[in-house]
Amino acid sequence: MSTIAFVGLGIMGSPMAVHLQQAGHEVRGHNRSPAKTGPLVEAGGTACGSAVEAVEGADVVCLMLPDGPDVEDVLLGDGQVLEHSRPGSLVVDFSTIRPDVARRMADEARDRGLRMLDAPVSGGEAGARNATLSIMVGGEAEDVETARPLLEVVGRTVVHVGPSGAGQTVKAANQLIVAGHLQVLAEAVALLEGYDVELGPALDVLGGGLAGSAVLEQKRGNMTERRFDPGFRVELHDKDLGIVTGAAREADVVLPVGGLLAQLMTSAVVNGDGRLDHSALLRGALRLNGRL
Amino acid sequence: MSTIAFVGLGIMGSPMAVHLQQAGHEVRGHNRSPAKTGPLVEAGGTACGSAVEAVEGADVVCLMLPDGPDVEDVLLGDGQVLEHSRPGSLVVDFSTIRPDVARRMADEARDRGLRMLDAPVSGGEAGARNATLSIMVGGEAEDVETARPLLEVVGRTVVHVGPSGAGQTVKAANQLIVAGHLQVLAEAVALLEGYDVELGPALDVLGGGLAGSAVLEQKRGNMTERRFDPGFRVELHDKDLGIVTGAAREADVVLPVGGLLAQLMTSAVVNGDGRLDHSALLRGALRLNGRL
Amino acid sequence: MSTIAFVGLGIMGSPMAVHLQQAGHEVRGHNRSPAKTGPLVEAGGTACGSAVEAVEGADVVCLMLPDGPDVEDVLLGDGQVLEHSRPGSLVVDFSTIRPDVARRMADEARDRGLRMLDAPVSGGEAGARNATLSIMVGGEAEDVETARPLLEVVGRTVVHVGPSGAGQTVKAANQLIVAGHLQVLAEAVALLEGYDVELGPALDVLGGGLAGSAVLEQKRGNMTERRFDPGFRVELHDKDLGIVTGAAREADVVLPVGGLLAQLMTSAVVNGDGRLDHSALLRGALRLNGRL
Amino acid sequence: MSTIAFVGLGIMGSPMAVHLQQAGHEVRGHNRSPAKTGPLVEAGGTACGSAVEAVEGADVVCLMLPDGPDVEDVLLGDGQVLEHSRPGSLVVDFSTIRPDVARRMADEARDRGLRMLDAPVSGGEAGARNATLSIMVGGEAEDVETARPLLEVVGRTVVHVGPSGAGQTVKAANQLIVAGHLQVLAEAVALLEGYDVELGPALDVLGGGLAGSAVLEQKRGNMTERRFDPGFRVELHDKDLGIVTGAAREADVVLPVGGLLAQLMTSAVVNGDGRLDHSALLRGALRLNGRL
Repeated sequence: MSTIAFVGLGIMGSPMAVHLQQAGHEVRGHNRSPAKTGPLVEAGGTACGSAVEAVEGADVVCLMLPDGPDVEDVLLGDGQVLEHSRPGSLVVDFSTIRPDVARRMADEARDRGLRMLDAPVSGGEAGARNATLSIMVGGEAEDVETARPLLEVVGRTVVHVGPSGAGQTVKAANQLIVAGHLQVLAEAVALLEGYDVELGPALDVLGGGLAGSAVLEQKRGNMTERRFDPGFRVELHDKDLGIVTGAAREADVVLPVGGLLAQLMTSAVVNGDGRLDHSALLRGALRLNGRL
Repeated sequence: MSTIAFVGLGIMGSPMAVHLQQAGHEVRGHNRSPAKTGPLVEAGGTACGSAVEAVEGADVVCLMLPDGPDVEDVLLGDGQVLEHSRPGSLVVDFSTIRPDVARRMADEARDRGLRMLDAPVSGGEAGARNATLSIMVGGEAEDVETARPLLEVVGRTVVHVGPSGAGQTVKAANQLIVAGHLQVLAEAVALLEGYDVELGPALDVLGGGLAGSAVLEQKRGNMTERRFDPGFRVELHDKDLGIVTGAAREADVVLPVGGLLAQLMTSAVVNGDGRLDHSALLRGALRLNGRL
Repeated sequence: MSTIAFVGLGIMGSPMAVHLQQAGHEVRGHNRSPAKTGPLVEAGGTACGSAVEAVEGADVVCLMLPDGPDVEDVLLGDGQVLEHSRPGSLVVDFSTIRPDVARRMADEARDRGLRMLDAPVSGGEAGARNATLSIMVGGEAEDVETARPLLEVVGRTVVHVGPSGAGQTVKAANQLIVAGHLQVLAEAVALLEGYDVELGPALDVLGGGLAGSAVLEQKRGNMTERRFDPGFRVELHDKDLGIVTGAAREADVVLPVGGLLAQLMTSAVVNGDGRLDHSALLRGALRLNGRL
Repeated sequence: MSTIAFVGLGIMGSPMAVHLQQAGHEVRGHNRSPAKTGPLVEAGGTACGSAVEAVEGADVVCLMLPDGPDVEDVLLGDGQVLEHSRPGSLVVDFSTIRPDVARRMADEARDRGLRMLDAPVSGGEAGARNATLSIMVGGEAEDVETARPLLEVVGRTVVHVGPSGAGQTVKAANQLIVAGHLQVLAEAVALLEGYDVELGPALDVLGGGLAGSAVLEQKRGNMTERRFDPGFRVELHDKDLGIVTGAAREADVVLPVGGLLAQLMTSAVVNGDGRLDHSALLRGALRLNGRL
């Protein structure tokens, strides 16, 4: 059993830390707003006043933070995690951040004798609560094998997809594809309704052929019933598309449709749909169509 | 058993007509270039020198033509099919055309005492040869039931999706969605390769989650191996996206991503990829990325 | 002095016909809804009950109609203008239609021993009233010279831009460019206001450099004051972008930004801005930005 | 006369520093690669081994650096300029960076008792050499007046457009608009050539009406002759569109066409056109059209 520092105990991080504690590890948790440490403490873990305090004596340091600058701040800035971590310990970053930043963080960790994995997850709040997350891991194969028992405590699918940054790149690709699937489904709905076609039988046919997708299957209900309780929130997907377009620009990758999707997702946010499920891209499509 | 006129014996129409003849119907086929009537005649059908000749004595008139203007020409123009069809007979248009044109044709048919269904198919050449097409049918429920036995000779899935034009609208929605799925997959591939991530494990993960789709499953091989033998050809998908954008404009439906997809598909055609499988949208993405 | 048939006496056609009559020509006008012939008759012209009647004895046949199908109907369909026009007479089509249709009409005219020019105009209602239109003419140089004295009665600038269809192509290019200039100006305004920058001094600087344009000069007032009385209406510009994208598709021309502009213009129409000046694209931009 | 530190003596900064020295000021220049200090030293200025050394005794600190991170590094990072500048002195940043970063830098300067202006320029290398730049200035009116005599040494037009960051916002708006004008002109050229219309007369007509622009006037030669020697380079415009889209995202501004323009400009870079004039967007348009 390991001693695990866990920094970032929000909606995702809190249940993940609790699962690790319940699996028999000793989890030392830290969160900027300390109120969030409750569930971990209840489960037997320790609340720490700072990231530095949390990493004391830890073999493994887990992060689950909102964005790249937060990760950078915790590791290299005020958080001082890399400086204070035990040599040889393993840093596992569950946050979704830009792949180029992930690579840079891994380099910084290595320079200090640490090992690092980028391990962004998909599956949302439900996946975190039920420990059914999918985890896309980038880093050294050996380190992935070291981490695997821990990762399998919080996730159901753990795949090593390549060297440092690869986990984040696959996550970015995932968010790009899902946004695209949601948007073309929304536009298809606009077209069908524009010709007064009943959605039910139409989506049945579409789902059974080459147009079929997990998005169509899982989100058609949201779209036909215009119910958009999350699920995965528009504002988070918007942040992720910022990562997609930023990462693309960093590596000189051209994403013509991806660029447009990022604009449409931001439009959903600024039109007040940020806290709805991302299938609320349909609302944006209807807005452009003068039907909302 | 019925007497069936079948106008349009191309790659799709020819095997469909043969299936109908083999199922015991009497098929009277016509094709602009008469050479194509060979397989039908071999199967015991009749080759007719004109559409008018074909519809003589027919209970059912089937069309499988390249585009809307062809359908209009056969029904109302030189082909004179509506004028010469037996009152009460049923016209089944398998062609993929604009839904507003399909509605208008159905109105014209009704004005002449005929009944009409729009019945575009998906499943491609293989589906036509193996009689495994999916057929999206628009029209009166009663007429659909009349036609069902015939439709089930050529297709595996037959779904009545609404009134006249609805079949074409669903087909248009299908082509919009499929184009979108192909394009975002292509962009995701460009992003993954831009960060040197190996496609195999990445696409495995993506396919298992919310990014999963029939396109990813069926076309990932084309994309990873850069092999684009059709399948469904870019030039046909481009024609279909012309239908999508034209139909959208006709009904004042706004398709921001759809409009861009239509441009990218045409770009594939004019860059010489028209006869490749539509997964060759990847080649367009790579071209924009300076990697082809 | 000539005898001129003028078909299409709407907002644009009526003052043009009047100018020709006032210049000493004998104008025989026809309009589908006969009420519109008033101003021409007051000016001394003749109201005709049909297009066929109008072309009787005419040396020149002018058309000013809403769209390509109207032109086709008047020339070849119910209007029967080509059939009844005097051999050798000159057809001048002022309508804005697709260049490929213009070419086809010119071929049809030539087949019947007539000559034809496509002569779309820019300058709007004010230009028609004040005879200050710009006229982009496609056709044979000789025919342009024959028509020039008449064209200069209704327009200030008359330019022969190439063979049949070229006038329409240049008009389409014009509408594409103007839409693009309006849209990027609207987006620039959204960006400036998003950073609380006062528009006045900002647009002064922008107008003085490489970002300067006639659109910025003439439409900045509409945008800063949010006043959108036309001017040139969104719904007409939307129709013209349908011509642009249709003509592009016909000739396999790829317009990535043009395709998106067409969607945004339609969005303005379906959001109720169709009768406003096309600078109301700003309203669409603000809508996407959640600020309307 | 002032003592001026000038950090960043590249293609733009070097002639600007020389102009200031020649106008009677004492210029202390620093550049990361010291070779570039030659022209300033020849003109009588002083070459300094570090930014800290350059700001010694300076009343005014000028920066002309490639991008925001460089500015941040010189002011707050290794460069330590804010820390070592004389209290009350004025920092003038000529670099083109994100407006939100400019605001933050100005806040940092103010916190240390310094005053700061963002003063990005347009007019390119020629403008820098001939001291004919346009300068868009953000900051306090009083500080702008203090700086004006210096600014007028290097530029012809100096406009105060608002508070800190406003100069950068206007510059971003400028680059957005210019990119849009170049792209729609390129698409219009593709359309005209797709219909075999001669560009010369067509662009004459277009330039005389509502489609007229400085871009059309100044760049039509590049487009008709396919000669793309810079001018302003694609790679710089691409960097600037990164600023535009980054700034838009930071302030939740939606730029549908702007997002697409940024992708197309990056596509030009990765297709090898980065060092050409930005009118080489035409090459991208032709590439998409299969005509390059």
